[in-house]
Amino acid sequence: MKPDRATLTAFRQKYEIELFERTIPFWLKNSLDTLNGGYYTCLSRDGAIYDTTKYVWLQGRQVWMLSKLYRCVEAQPILLDSARLGIEFLRSHAYTPDGQVYFSLDEVGRPKQLQRKMYSACFLLMALAEFGRASGDESYLQEAAELWKRIWDWAFHPEKLGRPNFAGVEPSTTLATPMILLNVIEELTDGKFEKFRAEVELCIEVLMRHVHADQEKVFENVGLQGQCLQGIEGRLLNPGHAIEGGWFLHNWAIRLGRNDLSEIARDMIRWSFRDGWDQEFGGIHYFLDSSGREPVQLEWDMKLWWPHCEALYAHLLNYSLFSESEDWSLFALVDAYSWDKFRDPEYGEWYGYLNRQGTPTHHFKGGPYKGCFHLPRALWLCWSLLKKLEESEAR
Amino acid sequence: MKPDRATLTAFRQKYEIELFERTIPFWLKNSLDTLNGGYYTCLSRDGAIYDTTKYVWLQGRQVWMLSKLYRCVEAQPILLDSARLGIEFLRSHAYTPDGQVYFSLDEVGRPKQLQRKMYSACFLLMALAEFGRASGDESYLQEAAELWKRIWDWAFHPEKLGRPNFAGVEPSTTLATPMILLNVIEELTDGKFEKFRAEVELCIEVLMRHVHADQEKVFENVGLQGQCLQGIEGRLLNPGHAIEGGWFLHNWAIRLGRNDLSEIARDMIRWSFRDGWDQEFGGIHYFLDSSGREPVQLEWDMKLWWPHCEALYAHLLNYSLFSESEDWSLFALVDAYSWDKFRDPEYGEWYGYLNRQGTPTHHFKGGPYKGCFHLPRALWLCWSLLKKLEESEAR
Repeated sequence: MKPDRATLTAFRQKYEIELFERTIPFWLKNSLDTLNGGYYTCLSRDGAIYDTTKYVWLQGRQVWMLSKLYRCVEAQPILLDSARLGIEFLRSHAYTPDGQVYFSLDEVGRPKQLQRKMYSACFLLMALAEFGRASGDESYLQEAAELWKRIWDWAFHPEKLGRPNFAGVEPSTTLATPMILLNVIEELTDGKFEKFRAEVELCIEVLMRHVHADQEKVFENVGLQGQCLQGIEGRLLNPGHAIEGGWFLHNWAIRLGRNDLSEIARDMIRWSFRDGWDQEFGGIHYFLDSSGREPVQLEWDMKLWWPHCEALYAHLLNYSLFSESEDWSLFALVDAYSWDKFRDPEYGEWYGYLNRQGTPTHHFKGGPYKGCFHLPRALWLCWSLLKKLEESEAR
Repeated sequence: MKPDRATLTAFRQKYEIELFERTIPFWLKNSLDTLNGGYYTCLSRDGAIYDTTKYVWLQGRQVWMLSKLYRCVEAQPILLDSARLGIEFLRSHAYTPDGQVYFSLDEVGRPKQLQRKMYSACFLLMALAEFGRASGDESYLQEAAELWKRIWDWAFHPEKLGRPNFAGVEPSTTLATPMILLNVIEELTDGKFEKFRAEVELCIEVLMRHVHADQEKVFENVGLQGQCLQGIEGRLLNPGHAIEGGWFLHNWAIRLGRNDLSEIARDMIRWSFRDGWDQEFGGIHYFLDSSGREPVQLEWDMKLWWPHCEALYAHLLNYSLFSESEDWSLFALVDAYSWDKFRDPEYGEWYGYLNRQGTPTHHFKGGPYKGCFHLPRALWLCWSLLKKLEESEAR
């Protein structure tokens, strides 16, 4: 089944309304802390604040999202003003004295938690870079470039973040590392990546070690040569993550003009979705074990909003690049499941967490790991791509 | 409903068989690593090993359990030999060069992970102390006493474990700290606690700050004066934990001859069970939010084996101390649910994790946090107490 123009128009309109009338307004209405700066992200179903902690991942991601929409969709002052509220809060409070980045802050910006990981810094960098472009203020881009140097160093020397290398741990990489670095370079350079070509090539090489075409699987953790690791870490699959990694790779394949990489990206998405989709109840499992065992993670069988958001865009991107009806059908399948199960017709935004059967276990719209990011990003990306497909049908 | 003698006998026999014929044999048959020392604890439903990581919590707890049964029930050589297999592995491999205790080791004992927490050390101490008594070798008890000094220091100076005190975190205590310390002192001293009276009193005082009688709740995290904290951490309830804390406190109340503490311990158990029990599907919720919101923990509505194990013994202890039929009924309720839902009639031991509806999400018998501990400990404690009740009925 391939969509005709009317179908594309209907989907494009649906995504447009969901993004601009039901999702972004939810965050603009409920999350802004105009007193202290930054955003509240622990928001109940109806937008009420149930915790005031400010998680740096989510602060950075919201700055990025609002700046992106301001620059790429429509320069509404409320978007840039709201982004500024976040980025100034982060600039004032997110850095440790020695240039690391806290994981969480309290309502007024005092540090609460520091992880021995680089992700907070990555989301701060994306916020700085996109806000710099949206506002036209170069100083944010310079600050992002400074932060990049430290992130690159931490990525290959995690001991500098206080994570010792113990003798009982087989040296390995996690899929998250090349994925986030490719995403960060994309955001830092906005496509002008020539000075980062070596870094990009290295990240793609590392990412590719996780893709085992012989088994049609994307492993979350592999050895330094890409070999499978023993035990539960080695067998772990995170389908949503691999699907997201697939579309990150598509972006670079397009930019580098590498059709071979596009085909791998397409397969990463298709394989991970095929394994991840729950044949019994629908929805994408959070974790799987490649041997078919139940993963030890307690939440393995839950259905989270973000893998579905990633799958929406990934299937649509596959369709737009390869024009195969299979990928459109998968997009339509995830769309139907997500609108039915995650969407809250009453208050806007989506639920984040369902049990295996598809019933919400949590009704909040934002929490320590859910903010203004995966849903609006996917809606924006899908809306943009649906518009392109619609326009190309018209020709 | 109070049990007559025949009922007590039937329960006692059921617990006896479950412990000695179906639980301990599962671990003795499947977990011993006679080649490298220590225990495999990642065991499938049928006992097959699915991961070889050795988690220090579970190594120490299994040593403790086997030693306890050897010393307190029956001096079978297999129990002591198997305990020795674990304690020698721990002695050789569990300590960091500066005297902390790793969280996990690989199959041959090389370090995998070090947490910035004291719990691994606490379970190592219990193993050392109980093995020392079971074997009659004082050197283990001396080692336990040395470790105690460090644990006591870490408990009040977590920054010595690398956990900084950040300005945005309101100073607070977690229920786990006084609970584990009271348990450790009990195990270290085997009831001869006179030299530790000040420490015991302090731990009870800290524990009591978590018990808010006015609200009939036991909070997992409170401020240093016992005041409620704002936000999700402050509202967190962990009913299984509070129920376990209740019977730890009962033990000390008995030892100190403090009836006032016994009544508080009884209420901790009753309140936490009343809040924790799922009126719709049965079973004890893993986490709750005291405001009635859904906790942010993804697994909040799951039913874990260990809160049910703790509740079995806690209700039975309440009954044995206060002779109120309500507590016997609660014991019988948890017993019926647990036997129906957690027990595996085919391979022995219990499943650890059910969804809210009571269906296993995981069929393994051991994992990174489930070993030879909560179930056999509860079965042993209940069996011992049922025997006492049975005997007193006979008089």
